[in-house]
Amino acid sequence: MAHDHAEHEQTPEQLQVQFEQLSLLESEFEDAESEVIRKAEAIKAPLYKKRTDFVAKVPHFWSLVFEQCPQEVENFIQPTDSEVFAECFETFEVSRFEVDDPKGSPRSFSLKFGFSENEWFEDKTLEKKFWYRHTKDWDGLVSEPVKIHWKKGKDLTSGLTDAAVKLHEARQKTTDRKKEVSLPEYKELAKKIETAEDASVSFFGLFAFVSGYRWVSAEESETAVKHDKEQLAKIRAGEKVDEEEEEDDEDPQDYQETEVFPGGDEVATIIAEDMWPNALRYYKQHFEEDGGEFDDEELSDLDVDMDEDDESGEEVDIRALVGKGKKGDEPPAKKQRKA
Amino acid sequence: MAHDHAEHEQTPEQLQVQFEQLSLLESEFEDAESEVIRKAEAIKAPLYKKRTDFVAKVPHFWSLVFEQCPQEVENFIQPTDSEVFAECFETFEVSRFEVDDPKGSPRSFSLKFGFSENEWFEDKTLEKKFWYRHTKDWDGLVSEPVKIHWKKGKDLTSGLTDAAVKLHEARQKTTDRKKEVSLPEYKELAKKIETAEDASVSFFGLFAFVSGYRWVSAEESETAVKHDKEQLAKIRAGEKVDEEEEEDDEDPQDYQETEVFPGGDEVATIIAEDMWPNALRYYKQHFEEDGGEFDDEELSDLDVDMDEDDESGEEVDIRALVGKGKKGDEPPAKKQRKA
Repeated sequence: MAHDHAEHEQTPEQLQVQFEQLSLLESEFEDAESEVIRKAEAIKAPLYKKRTDFVAKVPHFWSLVFEQCPQEVENFIQPTDSEVFAECFETFEVSRFEVDDPKGSPRSFSLKFGFSENEWFEDKTLEKKFWYRHTKDWDGLVSEPVKIHWKKGKDLTSGLTDAAVKLHEARQKTTDRKKEVSLPEYKELAKKIETAEDASVSFFGLFAFVSGYRWVSAEESETAVKHDKEQLAKIRAGEKVDEEEEEDDEDPQDYQETEVFPGGDEVATIIAEDMWPNALRYYKQHFEEDGGEFDDEELSDLDVDMDEDDESGEEVDIRALVGKGKKGDEPPAKKQRKA
Repeated sequence: MAHDHAEHEQTPEQLQVQFEQLSLLESEFEDAESEVIRKAEAIKAPLYKKRTDFVAKVPHFWSLVFEQCPQEVENFIQPTDSEVFAECFETFEVSRFEVDDPKGSPRSFSLKFGFSENEWFEDKTLEKKFWYRHTKDWDGLVSEPVKIHWKKGKDLTSGLTDAAVKLHEARQKTTDRKKEVSLPEYKELAKKIETAEDASVSFFGLFAFVSGYRWVSAEESETAVKHDKEQLAKIRAGEKVDEEEEEDDEDPQDYQETEVFPGGDEVATIIAEDMWPNALRYYKQHFEEDGGEFDDEELSDLDVDMDEDDESGEEVDIRALVGKGKKGDEPPAKKQRKA
């Protein structure tokens, strides 16, 4: 059946106006979304506090939550990472650290991992911050590489986190981001990544993550936001918006060649928006077999000795290390994860 | 480094108490999440209204949004489905129809598709409702199959939607759900699905979706919720919670053998929680090339004739039907979809 579009035909000028209106509406949606995140944080903050107090008394709580993590995160957890989690992962916290900051974004968040004394690194706390930032053409999460103080011969990332930290320090001192590519630290990291290409990166490579696009500073982001607001104000006032000149600052550079952990923003987002709010449910999944109830036998089996290391280098199941390791690999049978 | 667990050792009784406390906390989280959904709906309702008014003037808005849909949804859109969307898909609406219903759930939602006169079916509106319901061991979305009035020889689901509707009608008349499996309508649908196994199901098979587990009636769900609340009240009051007897009502039946559209709940959830709130962004993606700005040429190319049907049976790109089809298959370059 032919579709009559006569009534829809629009001139380019009309369409331009339409897109301006669309941008206005979109910015209202973004403000609303920020408001929703703020409200959600306010509603849930006392519960998160209560949960933190509760799980402090539950052995292996966060190890088991991460063992039960969604596939999209599990894909990044290597066997040795599982050992680290089982052995010394003690506390975990997500915080929306810019939720009330007018210059920041309620979409920014940090992941804070707490560890006990262990054989791999000196750090008791590793905190990874993700800032929601803007450029003229992009918005998303960026992060600074976090230094991990690996013990001798124990660096699970084979020098990638250190090299990312070094590049970031050098990057902070350059004024022109297009010159970044000629820094020796850039070349070194790019080469390391290229060499390591076939090996699976440790989950701890996430601490080296910078961006799905490129590093964006707070200043650049503020400028982009300010410019956007001015454009929207003009549209709202019915003023002519200047055609944006295609400035000659297109990046010829593929910054992803120095990204240690591509997709790190997505992994972190799943951790912050799914695993953190639904941690109790993930924890419970460990004890559920085919949707059944807990039984005492299962509960009393929880505290097994964790020292029986699996040295075989095969896939390590945290359940086998901290739990009874009986459940097998299939996902929990009937429970639908709550959205 | 050996990990000292002596301080963590707990008796089965202590662990039982711990799990009761966990259930209490989890129910508080669920209430908070419902409150967040209600608040989000209240904040966004006026914007959705404004957007509906706006997109009524934008040709092919929803066709283009669905053309730009995330991979998890696109996997379910067959070439002929794309043709239907391009040809006659006019309006779309998601509604949280139980958001203020104390017996319902703010997680329930409906997808309402509006169509113009077309060659495939008589319906002008197809509405698919998803109810968030509970059983003793499960909670999730269930739905009733929706009758599609296919034109002669045009049923894209080869009788699957009709057969699902018939089974559901028969199911409503049976009193014992375990007898469902012996209904002739059950056998017929299971056989149809088995036969069709290799063919890709049309997106319109979503209208036949029932559940990722099994059908759960409003009555059964209310009973389960009531029972849960009583258990939690006992825990809160410090009373002994009876060990739940493993009732002999385990389902030996795999109800998924009559599910026309496995994963339909997940697809619908992505549509409701991602595509609906972010529709403006998906629409804009159509016009964005490598994160650049719109240009007039692109805008004026939007209103092409849609009657040049692609009869080859190859992958049909809605862009090629309603737009200029220039962009290729790669996802938008730099824009990160907002969470």
